[in-house]
Amino acid sequence: MTLEAIRYRLGSLQILNQLLLPHETVYDEIRSVRDGYEAIKSMKVRGAPAIAIVGCLSLAVELRGGAGGEDLVSFIRDSLCHLTSARPTAVNMGRAARELMEFTENESMEKNTEQLRDSVIGWIEEMLERDVNDNKKIGNYGAQHILSGVPRDSITILTHCNTGSLATAGYGTALGVVRSLHTLGRLKRLYCTETRPYNQGARLTAYEAVAEGFPATLITDSMAALAMREKGITAVVVGADRVVANGDTANKVGTYQLAIAAKHHGIPFYVAAPSTSCDLSLESGRDIVIEERPAHELTSINGLPVAAPGIDVWNPAFDVTPHQLITGGIITELGVFLPSELQAALTGRLTAL
Amino acid sequence: MTLEAIRYRLGSLQILNQLLLPHETVYDEIRSVRDGYEAIKSMKVRGAPAIAIVGCLSLAVELRGGAGGEDLVSFIRDSLCHLTSARPTAVNMGRAARELMEFTENESMEKNTEQLRDSVIGWIEEMLERDVNDNKKIGNYGAQHILSGVPRDSITILTHCNTGSLATAGYGTALGVVRSLHTLGRLKRLYCTETRPYNQGARLTAYEAVAEGFPATLITDSMAALAMREKGITAVVVGADRVVANGDTANKVGTYQLAIAAKHHGIPFYVAAPSTSCDLSLESGRDIVIEERPAHELTSINGLPVAAPGIDVWNPAFDVTPHQLITGGIITELGVFLPSELQAALTGRLTAL
Repeated sequence: MTLEAIRYRLGSLQILNQLLLPHETVYDEIRSVRDGYEAIKSMKVRGAPAIAIVGCLSLAVELRGGAGGEDLVSFIRDSLCHLTSARPTAVNMGRAARELMEFTENESMEKNTEQLRDSVIGWIEEMLERDVNDNKKIGNYGAQHILSGVPRDSITILTHCNTGSLATAGYGTALGVVRSLHTLGRLKRLYCTETRPYNQGARLTAYEAVAEGFPATLITDSMAALAMREKGITAVVVGADRVVANGDTANKVGTYQLAIAAKHHGIPFYVAAPSTSCDLSLESGRDIVIEERPAHELTSINGLPVAAPGIDVWNPAFDVTPHQLITGGIITELGVFLPSELQAALTGRLTAL
Repeated sequence: MTLEAIRYRLGSLQILNQLLLPHETVYDEIRSVRDGYEAIKSMKVRGAPAIAIVGCLSLAVELRGGAGGEDLVSFIRDSLCHLTSARPTAVNMGRAARELMEFTENESMEKNTEQLRDSVIGWIEEMLERDVNDNKKIGNYGAQHILSGVPRDSITILTHCNTGSLATAGYGTALGVVRSLHTLGRLKRLYCTETRPYNQGARLTAYEAVAEGFPATLITDSMAALAMREKGITAVVVGADRVVANGDTANKVGTYQLAIAAKHHGIPFYVAAPSTSCDLSLESGRDIVIEERPAHELTSINGLPVAAPGIDVWNPAFDVTPHQLITGGIITELGVFLPSELQAALTGRLTAL
């Protein structure tokens, strides 16, 4: 089985509502940019690449329905601006918005409104295919790099959060590396953290692991260091919401702590991310703004309170892992790079934001 | 307000059912050793010192009711053996059982059955008072040690799990240190981890913090390293289920990971534990048997599933923090010691197990 988290057919968009997983499999119809914004903001869809795809596809749906009228360029600009504001830490939506806006403005010089509409829709529809192909490359590069570094027959991976089919258009980034190892018959076991407070690991990664038949074990976030000491973890592989020029990486909160524990145990720590998640316009992780989310995400589960009433809460959604702790490398669709090599590797391929 | 988690009045024992906190305050009657065993096993009462007290008091209740008849020594031996098996990692119950059994055997040489019964009941009833007094000493020694080590006016502490009034007969161990700092007017803020999978931090420590008026903030276990980097944590203070001769410490799972993160940030890491939690009969942490608990504790909360069905789970209840990571010291009722000093400091005061 391969999960299909985003269903798009010529102007019709449905997304698997990840808030209801793993218990209910419900697809929500996305009919507008407003629906797309709400789906991203409420985390029905999450994962930086998937956010960008769903955001842009929600625009394509409206465009196919005739939205924007004669003032198409303004409509596209306003829509992209709104979509980008839904989850500001994830860089992919912002990058896609800028690239699409540049494309739109160039096209608008030469084309009439209906031709422009078709061009923009075509640009967006190509994103889906690109994302899956990039992820397959990430998976294969990552698997080969990990296998080349260890003398063992089989590999035990620890991962955090969800970076699989449910976070992308398909295949996955860090979980794509796991998928490639599994396909090669070299995956001994995957340890996935539950990933508090939103439990993406327990709900989504575990769901994908069961669905795909990966040998996998769920642990709490607090058991990762013990697993590193006791369970023969070969490598830690996580995704990224944003990788900046020096290799510092913003990812789901808890990543930084995992990287410290991996360093302590001498276990290589990898970040797997498409080059579209790399933001060379920022020098270091100090420049990344970290989103803080509401307290209730931590104090209740499925609407039921789990913490003492009245307690103050700090709920940063992400943290920044300094490049010094990314000891395995940064796995992109272009290859695996040390943090210090990243900027040179990507320069020329990526337009700085 | 000071919480009263264990209510004992001459043969009547009630415990605050911690499984229902923080939402319901329900006291359960403990009428027998069997009730005591069940309360410990099901975690209605938890925390190594509280387990020992409730276990022994459940025996005192039965003894006051006339249980054991003429074969009192056998009855006491069987009862203590049963109680010790409920949570084998926590050393205090085992120690109390051995000490009480030795006392019982000595007394039985000289006394008739009724005299022996009274002696044993008296021995147990003194445990409550001793525990609270020891904790107050731990709190004061710990607070003074932390204050003497930093030039700051006020102190920010990070703690894990629950080690307060709810884990002891009162005052607390690690949370006793926080209580002493607060009483001195020197506590700026307490960060408490939610402590998955059983959420003792979110349910119990947060409950105590709100009740006692500590300035306190709840975080997920995965945010601790970020808090260390961003929030000016002065020291990490945790409790212990067992401290062995070289200072290695078994405590709630996640403690090891916190200690690694504290070391990485140069933040002193303290263990606060009564000398009764120290087990000099074991050389190092490698000799500690770690209890593994059922998967459902991790995959459901309040009976509701929170993880994907079918996923394999690893649920160790404790981990062992090597003494090298206990950089602040081990805070006992006798003073604060480096791990390397512990054995000498306790020798003569403790009977080896």
